[in-house]
Amino acid sequence: MKKHQLEETTIASKSIYKGRIISLQVDEVNLPNGKTSTREIIKHPGAVAVIPVTNEGKIIMVEQYRKAMEKALVEIPAGKLEKGEDPLETAKRELEEETGLQAGQMTKIISFYTSPGFADELVYVYLATDLTTPEKRLEVDEDEFVEVLELSIEEAKKLVEEERIHDAKTAYAIQYLELLQLKQK
Amino acid sequence: MKKHQLEETTIASKSIYKGRIISLQVDEVNLPNGKTSTREIIKHPGAVAVIPVTNEGKIIMVEQYRKAMEKALVEIPAGKLEKGEDPLETAKRELEEETGLQAGQMTKIISFYTSPGFADELVYVYLATDLTTPEKRLEVDEDEFVEVLELSIEEAKKLVEEERIHDAKTAYAIQYLELLQLKQK
Repeated sequence: MKKHQLEETTIASKSIYKGRIISLQVDEVNLPNGKTSTREIIKHPGAVAVIPVTNEGKIIMVEQYRKAMEKALVEIPAGKLEKGEDPLETAKRELEEETGLQAGQMTKIISFYTSPGFADELVYVYLATDLTTPEKRLEVDEDEFVEVLELSIEEAKKLVEEERIHDAKTAYAIQYLELLQLKQK
Repeated sequence: MKKHQLEETTIASKSIYKGRIISLQVDEVNLPNGKTSTREIIKHPGAVAVIPVTNEGKIIMVEQYRKAMEKALVEIPAGKLEKGEDPLETAKRELEEETGLQAGQMTKIISFYTSPGFADELVYVYLATDLTTPEKRLEVDEDEFVEVLELSIEEAKKLVEEERIHDAKTAYAIQYLELLQLKQK
């Protein structure tokens, strides 16, 4: 497509904050019409999300407190990439840390930016099947507290209605499984 | 659920930046185990996303440059809430500003947080049908440049594979329509 007609070129970039997970910069840009504007940009290391499905077709989720919303949300297991880490390794690690489960099969299904208007966070989404419980449970992050839930698609859709499930990647995951089951019929 | 067992209480909150669209604060929190940690939080006014579907079952999208990723992405029309604005009004406005179209019917289908780990951005998603072109085109934002595309679901899925469609709300929208069409069969 006509990328050159849409492109914004950077005039100046100012680093506002570099934190533990995210950093913030404000860019001054030249617009396609020659005018200037500012863009507030969050840099994020990227993340993985895992859709763990049992042999009975149930989906494993975790409930955790989300400080940004000041409430607990039920989500598919997820976590940020460590520096230089292969997303598949992150997915295996996060699944085991958060749920205690290992996946016999882990298949990448999509990746997507979560908030392209202001952040570069890219989430790699995996389908995890052939789930087993290892004898020795992996140590969890010491500042991470989660409750594990096993839900049917119908139960998950009810939690969406109640807004206890209320994030994009988990809404995507539920639709993905619903679509998969409809196609298999 | 056992929210009290998961809750993080705020010890201190420091405002780092207040910008044109987002603001950043860093909270010091008490964890359920009594330890402390920090949470980097982006506050965002919230947004809408619109899935505009023609009578022929095609989906209208827009291509625009996304500075955070330094590339153009094809997405469903979207935009942030103005202060005090009803999301339905934002949805109508953004649809018309970005595509030139008005919707005879606009139905809310879901809302979701985009990045619950670090941001409170909530996106309200609407299905827009009975699309018409008004005689007088609404003025667009002067720092917004978009190209309008009309895609079949198959064409949209191809753009997902090519990663020209590469964001969560648009991936959700494509699945939503695919599911809708399968259920109608």
